[in-house]
This record gives sequence, C-alpha cells and structure tokens, in this order.
Amino acid sequence: MPRILFAAGANRWPDYHAPLARALHDAGMEADLVTETDTPDAVDYIVYAPGGTVTDFTPYTNCKAVLNLWAGVEKIVGNRTLTQPLCRMVDSGLEEGMVEYVTGHVLRHHLGMDRYIVATGNEWDPVVPPLARDRTVAMLGLGALGQACAQALVALNFDVLGWSRSARDVPGVRCHSGPEGLSDVLHQAEIAVLLLPLTEATENLMNRESLALLPCGAVLINPGRGALIDDDALLAALESDRVAHATLDVFRTEPLPGDHPFWGHPRVTVTPHIASETRPESAARVIAENVRRGEAGEPFLFQVDRRMGY
Amino acid sequence: MPRILFAAGANRWPDYHAPLARALHDAGMEADLVTETDTPDAVDYIVYAPGGTVTDFTPYTNCKAVLNLWAGVEKIVGNRTLTQPLCRMVDSGLEEGMVEYVTGHVLRHHLGMDRYIVATGNEWDPVVPPLARDRTVAMLGLGALGQACAQALVALNFDVLGWSRSARDVPGVRCHSGPEGLSDVLHQAEIAVLLLPLTEATENLMNRESLALLPCGAVLINPGRGALIDDDALLAALESDRVAHATLDVFRTEPLPGDHPFWGHPRVTVTPHIASETRPESAARVIAENVRRGEAGEPFLFQVDRRMGY
Repeated sequence: MPRILFAAGANRWPDYHAPLARALHDAGMEADLVTETDTPDAVDYIVYAPGGTVTDFTPYTNCKAVLNLWAGVEKIVGNRTLTQPLCRMVDSGLEEGMVEYVTGHVLRHHLGMDRYIVATGNEWDPVVPPLARDRTVAMLGLGALGQACAQALVALNFDVLGWSRSARDVPGVRCHSGPEGLSDVLHQAEIAVLLLPLTEATENLMNRESLALLPCGAVLINPGRGALIDDDALLAALESDRVAHATLDVFRTEPLPGDHPFWGHPRVTVTPHIASETRPESAARVIAENVRRGEAGEPFLFQVDRRMGY
Repeated sequence: MPRILFAAGANRWPDYHAPLARALHDAGMEADLVTETDTPDAVDYIVYAPGGTVTDFTPYTNCKAVLNLWAGVEKIVGNRTLTQPLCRMVDSGLEEGMVEYVTGHVLRHHLGMDRYIVATGNEWDPVVPPLARDRTVAMLGLGALGQACAQALVALNFDVLGWSRSARDVPGVRCHSGPEGLSDVLHQAEIAVLLLPLTEATENLMNRESLALLPCGAVLINPGRGALIDDDALLAALESDRVAHATLDVFRTEPLPGDHPFWGHPRVTVTPHIASETRPESAARVIAENVRRGEAGEPFLFQVDRRMGY
C-alpha cells in the first residue's frame, strides 16, 4: 500500500482529504494518506505546493514522484535536492476557470464594457462594437491552459493568433513560434493574453522593446505569471497610450504591495490572483491517476522536463 | 426585373446600397434598387425599417413582400394597411453580435468583475468565483438569437435553462415552456437573460410577481425589448435585493430619458441599445435570398405569423 505524504499546506488538507481518498478509491488504489511522517524513506509519493512542510527532498529516498498541486512549477523546479520525477498539475477545473476568466475579460475589452460599468452620467451615445471576427486576439503560451482559452475564443469567432516557444498546431489558431514569430504576433495583437510558464527565457518577455511592437491602444491581460512583465515598462507603455488597458491577475510580489502604482491606476485592473485555482475534486483525480501509474510502472502524466523548466 | 424600394431610412442607404447590389448580383438577380418612387404599384419588394418613408402600404398594390431590416417587428406588425407578406430579419451578423454581448455580460456577472473594475483601494481579497458548471443561467426566449446565445453558454459549461412560449428542444439546454415552465425557470435563475419578442403576451412579463420568483441576488440582463420589463417593479426588486443587478440595453423610450432612475443607479448598467445591430453585408444576403425566393415563387424565409406577432 503506497504511502502518500500531503505536503501542500495544512490549510489545504481539509479541502483535499476527502476528494483524494475518494479519487484513490475510484482508481482502485488503497493508499496510506498522511500529512506528516517520521520515516521519510517510507514515503512513496509527495503531494506538493509551495509553502508546505517539505523543502528538502533528500530524505525521501524511496519517493517515486513529487506531484505538484499547481500548474506552475517555477518555485520547485530549481530545488537542487529534488531528484525525483516532478509532475505538474493539469486540472480540468483549473482549465475551466481559466477559460472563463480569459473569455470574460477578452469580451469585456472587446465590447468596451467598462465605460458603461463606471458611467455616472446620462449620455445616450450608441456605438455598436465590431464583431469578434474583426478583432485579433493573441494568446502567448499554448500549453494546456493557453490552448483551451484559444479554442474558446475561436468558438466565439475571434481572430486568434497563438505564440509558443516551440511550434504548435492548434485548430483555428494562427500559430507562430520563436523570436520572429513573437514580433509578428505582437504587431497584430489588439488584445494580448499571457499564459506562458515562467522560465529564464520568458521572464520580462513583455519589456520596453516588445511592448513597443503592439498596435497603439492594445490591451494586455495577464493571468499567467507576474514576472512575465517588466512592471516599469508596462507603466511607461500605459503612459504613452501604446497600451490602453492592462488587466492583471498575477504579480511579482503577492499580495501586490499596497503602494504599487498598479493599485488605483485608471487603466489597470488588478484582480487578486483569482483567475483560476486548482479544484480539489478534479485535481485529486489527476493525483490518483499518477499514483496508479507509478504503482503500475507506467509513465507519469505531465512530468516536468527539468531542462525546459516546465 | 423586380423593383426594390429601400424604405429603411435615407441615413442607412449609404451603408446598404453597395452590399445590397452585391448580394443581389451574387444571388443571380438583376433588380432595380430605388429609394423613392412615383409609381408605388410598380414596386415588387419593400425593404423596411421604422422611421423610413413608408407608413401606408395601401398604394403598393403589387408588392410581393415587405422585408424588415430588424429582428423585431412590433412596430410594423400591427399596421392595418399592411396586407403583404412580412418577413423578419434573421441576420448572422446580428446573431454574432448578440452572442458576444450576452456571453460577455453573463461572464461579467458570473465572475463578479465589476468590483475590480470600479475598485479604487488597494485591498487584496482573493475570492475565486465558482465554475460556470455551478452557475444557472436562464434564457427567456428561444428564437434564433436566444438559441444561439444559449448554445454559446452551454459551450462554456454554464447550466442553461431555456423558456419559450411553445415547447422547444435545444441541445444541452433544459427547456421549459408555458406559464408553469416560466415559474420553474425563474425560481432557479441566478442570471436571467431576456431575448423574447415583444407581443401582448410578453409585455411586462417581468413584473412584481415574476421578479419575486427569482432567487435572492439574481442578475437580469435585457438585450431584448424594453417593454418586457415593468420598470417600477424592477426598481422595487433592486431596492429589496431580490435583483442584485440589472444590465439593460433596451428601454420603453429610447434614448432613455435623462431623468429616468435607471441612469446612475448603482446597480443598473445602461448600455445604449448596442447589444447588436443588423450588419449590412450579412443582412443584404438575406434580403437578396428573399427576393430570389419571391421571384421563383418559393416560400419566403422568416415570414411573420401575424396572429403570433412575430
């Protein structure tokens, strides 16, 4: 009977205990679910999230895999004590929530909703927005989340461009890759959505030079990772009207410090890292499936390539 | 060669002239497109919109059909001089725009966007919204527009209820009809969208009694017709928190009078009849197809049933 150490934070245990037990049972697995251990060498799997109890993986000499609870692994992938296989979370609940956030905020900017939401006067000035088919949206990042969002936008008839480090093919999406592809995509992006992993190559991807490639009045939506954007460059781009609005869900420091200029900026919408989160029910099924695979000697789902960082 | 009188307003002629000529040509029709005539008995088809030059149809003794430029026909269907067949507009461009407006505003309310859009402070208070699959949206009206919107919401995983006067079957939508069905639907509607035609039976459909059936804190979205709602009853329902927010695109009197209490109401969003409009390119193709059908002696598309009023 495999022993699974839940090291993703004591505060999350109440939400995850029952779903994990259920999912393991449904996968036909009997397992010993624990939140602490005196015998780390007896642990077969670690369910991990940053801020949990495990920072040094050295004593877990028989651990077959570390199963990350979140999609992003940038806080663990560089841990030098981690020699075991590391798996990212690809959770259908997380994906659904992200599709809803991205689709909602793209439509909000596409339709120009804000002017009616904040209106205080009584001016009747009908301007019908263009159709989605005449609006170009760029999805930067075509992993599981980026692809799902891109396809939801395609279903709504948006003209969708995609960009990823290595070439991808997503139905209905005009896909580009590499540095030249990025420049092509940014040039056309009326609305740009960032759903890239945070790696050395993507940190500050949106900087003074790349932001200057956007068409004037572009909108930036970042539900990916805060450090994808150089904050000062974004503030300058807002100042110059290159960027008309930024809707940001993630930040270099979270909570966003109270004195950060994004707060209260008339053309920045701050959402407090709520675009989506891993949902216990669906995430537990992914964990259980990876435990089943580990026990059966099958390859893990969503194993991280350490060289790529995701 | 059929003569077509464009009686939908001189201000619209510049937008429609070229698309109509193109669409007629593409349909293989030669036609005589005019904006006025001294010989009404020589007119074969009238392209109509309220506010145009024709109010008395009596002299158009040889007219084969009146082709309405809009989806709603309530301003013409009661005209007693109109004895010719009347066709509504079912325009793919109008439908696309409506799907975008409805999907956007449903997601806006589902995600609770407004609090971040109007925020002025610096409070980090992360509350992740529920998934669409746990949100019940009611579509009142399952005509072409209502069905298209309902299916877009189904595609985003919303739990979608539908209501129509006579029974309908829409894939993925829990359909109800008749007075009892309305009560069932309103009881469950966290977000209710009105896309009904305006008839004697639907005027003031949302009144004191029906609004009281909604769950507390429901949201109302009306891109249909203003008179579907009893304004005073809605204001009272907002006052009592039965309705948390109303997003209204259509009104009994348009432009909405400057002293109407909807203006500036903290829980009403007024959009100035911009949810969607007929698009010349796609509408012209519908007009041309109906002219072709008339000339070929085939039944018209979207002919209005005078008894039903739509």
